[in-house]
Amino acid sequence: MRRVQIVGATGYGGLGILELLLAHPEFEVTSLVARDAAGQRIDEVYPHLTGRCALTVQTADDAQVGSGADVVVFATPDRVSQGYAKALADAGVPFIDYSGDFRFGSTADYALYAARHPSIKDGTHEADALLGRAAYGVSELFADRIAQAAIVGNPGCFAIGIILGLAPLFADGLVADGAVSIASLSGSSGAGKKPAPLQHLSHLNDNVVPYRVLTHQHVIEAELTLGRLGAAGGATLDFVPHVIGATRGILSTMHARLTRPSSREALLERYREYFAGQPFVRVLDVPPMLKGQAGSNYCDISLVTSEDGRRVVVMSSIDNLMKGQSGSAMQNLNIMFGLDQAAGLDRTPLYP
Amino acid sequence: MRRVQIVGATGYGGLGILELLLAHPEFEVTSLVARDAAGQRIDEVYPHLTGRCALTVQTADDAQVGSGADVVVFATPDRVSQGYAKALADAGVPFIDYSGDFRFGSTADYALYAARHPSIKDGTHEADALLGRAAYGVSELFADRIAQAAIVGNPGCFAIGIILGLAPLFADGLVADGAVSIASLSGSSGAGKKPAPLQHLSHLNDNVVPYRVLTHQHVIEAELTLGRLGAAGGATLDFVPHVIGATRGILSTMHARLTRPSSREALLERYREYFAGQPFVRVLDVPPMLKGQAGSNYCDISLVTSEDGRRVVVMSSIDNLMKGQSGSAMQNLNIMFGLDQAAGLDRTPLYP
Amino acid sequence: MRRVQIVGATGYGGLGILELLLAHPEFEVTSLVARDAAGQRIDEVYPHLTGRCALTVQTADDAQVGSGADVVVFATPDRVSQGYAKALADAGVPFIDYSGDFRFGSTADYALYAARHPSIKDGTHEADALLGRAAYGVSELFADRIAQAAIVGNPGCFAIGIILGLAPLFADGLVADGAVSIASLSGSSGAGKKPAPLQHLSHLNDNVVPYRVLTHQHVIEAELTLGRLGAAGGATLDFVPHVIGATRGILSTMHARLTRPSSREALLERYREYFAGQPFVRVLDVPPMLKGQAGSNYCDISLVTSEDGRRVVVMSSIDNLMKGQSGSAMQNLNIMFGLDQAAGLDRTPLYP
Amino acid sequence: MRRVQIVGATGYGGLGILELLLAHPEFEVTSLVARDAAGQRIDEVYPHLTGRCALTVQTADDAQVGSGADVVVFATPDRVSQGYAKALADAGVPFIDYSGDFRFGSTADYALYAARHPSIKDGTHEADALLGRAAYGVSELFADRIAQAAIVGNPGCFAIGIILGLAPLFADGLVADGAVSIASLSGSSGAGKKPAPLQHLSHLNDNVVPYRVLTHQHVIEAELTLGRLGAAGGATLDFVPHVIGATRGILSTMHARLTRPSSREALLERYREYFAGQPFVRVLDVPPMLKGQAGSNYCDISLVTSEDGRRVVVMSSIDNLMKGQSGSAMQNLNIMFGLDQAAGLDRTPLYP
Repeated sequence: MRRVQIVGATGYGGLGILELLLAHPEFEVTSLVARDAAGQRIDEVYPHLTGRCALTVQTADDAQVGSGADVVVFATPDRVSQGYAKALADAGVPFIDYSGDFRFGSTADYALYAARHPSIKDGTHEADALLGRAAYGVSELFADRIAQAAIVGNPGCFAIGIILGLAPLFADGLVADGAVSIASLSGSSGAGKKPAPLQHLSHLNDNVVPYRVLTHQHVIEAELTLGRLGAAGGATLDFVPHVIGATRGILSTMHARLTRPSSREALLERYREYFAGQPFVRVLDVPPMLKGQAGSNYCDISLVTSEDGRRVVVMSSIDNLMKGQSGSAMQNLNIMFGLDQAAGLDRTPLYP
Repeated sequence: MRRVQIVGATGYGGLGILELLLAHPEFEVTSLVARDAAGQRIDEVYPHLTGRCALTVQTADDAQVGSGADVVVFATPDRVSQGYAKALADAGVPFIDYSGDFRFGSTADYALYAARHPSIKDGTHEADALLGRAAYGVSELFADRIAQAAIVGNPGCFAIGIILGLAPLFADGLVADGAVSIASLSGSSGAGKKPAPLQHLSHLNDNVVPYRVLTHQHVIEAELTLGRLGAAGGATLDFVPHVIGATRGILSTMHARLTRPSSREALLERYREYFAGQPFVRVLDVPPMLKGQAGSNYCDISLVTSEDGRRVVVMSSIDNLMKGQSGSAMQNLNIMFGLDQAAGLDRTPLYP
Repeated sequence: MRRVQIVGATGYGGLGILELLLAHPEFEVTSLVARDAAGQRIDEVYPHLTGRCALTVQTADDAQVGSGADVVVFATPDRVSQGYAKALADAGVPFIDYSGDFRFGSTADYALYAARHPSIKDGTHEADALLGRAAYGVSELFADRIAQAAIVGNPGCFAIGIILGLAPLFADGLVADGAVSIASLSGSSGAGKKPAPLQHLSHLNDNVVPYRVLTHQHVIEAELTLGRLGAAGGATLDFVPHVIGATRGILSTMHARLTRPSSREALLERYREYFAGQPFVRVLDVPPMLKGQAGSNYCDISLVTSEDGRRVVVMSSIDNLMKGQSGSAMQNLNIMFGLDQAAGLDRTPLYP
Repeated sequence: MRRVQIVGATGYGGLGILELLLAHPEFEVTSLVARDAAGQRIDEVYPHLTGRCALTVQTADDAQVGSGADVVVFATPDRVSQGYAKALADAGVPFIDYSGDFRFGSTADYALYAARHPSIKDGTHEADALLGRAAYGVSELFADRIAQAAIVGNPGCFAIGIILGLAPLFADGLVADGAVSIASLSGSSGAGKKPAPLQHLSHLNDNVVPYRVLTHQHVIEAELTLGRLGAAGGATLDFVPHVIGATRGILSTMHARLTRPSSREALLERYREYFAGQPFVRVLDVPPMLKGQAGSNYCDISLVTSEDGRRVVVMSSIDNLMKGQSGSAMQNLNIMFGLDQAAGLDRTPLYP
């Protein structure tokens, strides 16, 4: 059994990976670290865990980060893991980080992201020497790198759905001007469990709220990734995130012009070929729906072309807390340890 | 035009009375007072007010409480209005208060309430000499007192629906042992707009959370009121509030044993007689539903008896922000100023 | 008092105009016609109307369409009003129709729409001779025509928000290639009250479902209208409707490239100028939100430009049952009868 | 591998057991039978099953009921399984039924239920000779009988939560007069996937609708079961079901007077003792919440006593499609085949 320490264990991201690891045949969770709720049992913090996990939450001081663990999962905000990275690298303890800290292979790329991030004031990276050794955790595109890496930067929740939805088009050089217009709809859990006016049920229930229009930081990793795939020559994503009155899910509707006319059937076939063998990408004949992946690690994708075949609408949908966060992390952990990618992730979506 | 000052103008309660007053032919709002957002225009705080109200929020220091007003509405938490009460009484400025500060006619009654209230540490009342001069603002029961009073204690949101739903039974001495078992379901807006873990959409969406089981403070005013009506000889209400994943509404389902057998038809007829002429109580043949009063001041009531006629289930439903708060306040203001009770309140519920 | 007959009175569209007319100082509803529920009182069909309206629903046979009415409102599906149109025109009874029957000024335009409509098999129009005499009911663009017309084709719920959101850009010739990519989110009430698998709460709750991707019929009226405004030279709208787990509202997020660079500030100023004096269009500094217009007739609009000023995102939001249906109908009735456009429509959105 | 045939496979109940069986190490699903959608693949009916199950739905004619199966699950309405029961019994094929057909051990008991059921006109049972051989499928109370039985009547969704919540009190003779007042809140999925006005999102969203007040048929099985436990001397349950705007879950709030005073602590301890060793009953210190069991087979229970210890409020909560339906069926199948009760059911609730 591989021993896992979860840092940031009391947020939704920590909870998610904890639940997956509890049900995984090859991993065990040995310590939970968090600022909030230190000293409480995790099933007091989350009563739905009663009977499933009774570990006590510890501070980072009490449970030394990396100590006694074969791998650490940082389910923490930006700029946390980079402070521990060098020590862990020196100690030979691999880790996955949920934030943007290790999603970028160079300080230049990271700076583009940091400049967009609402809570990063200073774009210098504390562990920039390690950026080149980290893998970006889109399991479907970079499994080889992830398998070799001791540091994995888990993708942003919006980014993963956009990247998977557009990868075949960019790889084939099919996106005119590399330009895509994107409207993404996210459940409220994407912002974490911290109370905030936007997350108040009375405000968000029955509501749709566009925010950070054309300025959201997740678009950077998607642009950098898609723009460098195969025949792509850069990507410009006009991205409009919306938070909606639902708990889970991100559905992205993406419009592009094509460099050469195509048909829906041809493109769907190309998508199926591109993702052949990937356990968690499903190319559907019908549009995906937001809750069609709830509780599972699937990314569902479909598309429609205009009558003249010159324009395309691609739709992708994920559970933002699974494929958009903990599910991808679990998949990446499996890859890092040479296990079946789908181990511990073989789950039917919860519907209705 | 009567001039109204709203204290606590930026909460849901302040917003509610502001909107009602803006549409009222006989009142004008002359100042908005609040701690939060002082210096902002109210339509910056609430963009849905754009084009409808551009008043600037002031602190209690900048806009002296009571100054230039014919009446003050305190849409504030417990223990705020009692600090201003004596000065206002001395100045001859009447006021309505949303909190429990003036719902009780004696220090003894208030003490019962204060002891139950989660945020009242010390049950002494700063303006206890004025308690006897205040009216409890259940418009349907105490209109005469309200019309005479310079101080009105607006009822609690749970209490008003319970009181109206049970008043005919208690008045007629029909409730065995004065005992009623109550399950009430409240939308999240009842707790106000302040972000909190319980109000987080990801937590509350699709959820029902019982809380303060048998200990909620609103039951005190309901017990004291019902237990003293007509042939009643006290009331014991076993009250279980639940917050649910909806924005508005309180529906209460209330079980009682009857002192003498009756039928559904006979009781419905008695209810219709009891509430005859009341513009905002509707006795329905079918069970009321939570959103059947949304945006309106109605209290909808219906009931069912057991086959043997010895037990009854009464259901009442209101919009907690209207009849449960601002609507009752508007109705009471109308009564205080000798206007038609329904002035400014003639609204069809928003359905669907 | 002008006498109004509502045909299709038991659907959400009939209910909406009934409620508005009940509160209107210059109109009275004299008969309700519907296939369903004939013989029932309308407050039995909709208990929330108890105490507000007790008219009995009649069949079209029992209450002759147009009889005893100064105006008829057809809140009916496509192909109903066109069957009554000639008789009403001959009798000099004006009418408004909610469907696509009279939104188009020519048989050619109507044929484009009919070909797209999922339930229209045969695109011939029973009253094509009257098409040229009908006005398209976008109050903000065609008030002069509406004021003169005896037939008004009320706009589609998606179309009105898209048209108002894009009109200033098209009128100024600012939309490159006339091409706009649109993602629209609609509450479930847009599909009416008829039960259907898509509308089942267990399916739609917490869900977002794209449908009729690039094939929805509402886009035709928007393309024809926008493409002919001012300096516009046609419009191509790639339109993706989504139904979401909310009751009311349509929010549209629209991406376009600009023919000449501009700034957010300049465009917002142009929008404010364009809509100056319009009582129901609000140009906001912040993105509109889906429920910011609930229960009101407002269309809220805002926009953001890309850093280089070459691309724009416009967002518009309405209550689909108000500005998207009954509210526009009420506004058009006011215009037809020479009344203040806002009569009976002066309502603050219901928030939270 | 035990071979399972599911009859009624396209409803929520059939879907639920299908998903559980797909993930179960000891069972395989060999045929899906349903009236609707015969000839379609189940992942066309439910796209979220893409990649997980591609069985084709067959009619009862094409796939003979019971043929080639070690056990049949009837996820069908009342009066279906009783028509197949004798043939299956003769053939030695055991079955579980979701309806009320085999929940009662005698024709007398069944008649009480049938008289209450809104869609049963004639209370005669087609296979009454088999009633005495069937077990009532409350796994926690009747595991021994279930293990022996070839026919199991799976409990009603409301009944199971009520029975588990009250069993310790009735068994100990603690319920005064055997009388309990119950308010139960159910998500919409309890009524199945068939579209209906009550299930329309526009109606039910943000709503709570009491229905069948004091007349719901599920109360019969709960009264008969509880009233015969241990020291109980009959049960009278005043039951008010409410459907709410959520997909899953049933939370019941139950008020009773106690025959002898007790404390919360003492009763909680008794509950923990009573359910010791039961894998799916969790006695919590805090009130359970509706979505605290989503996707899992848990029944969470807690309680509060009045200050004088003479009255109690018990709250129980389940996922109505799991413990309230397919989860109990899976647990009963495990018991019938001598497997670990929890096999295939070891799932953490989906939260948030």
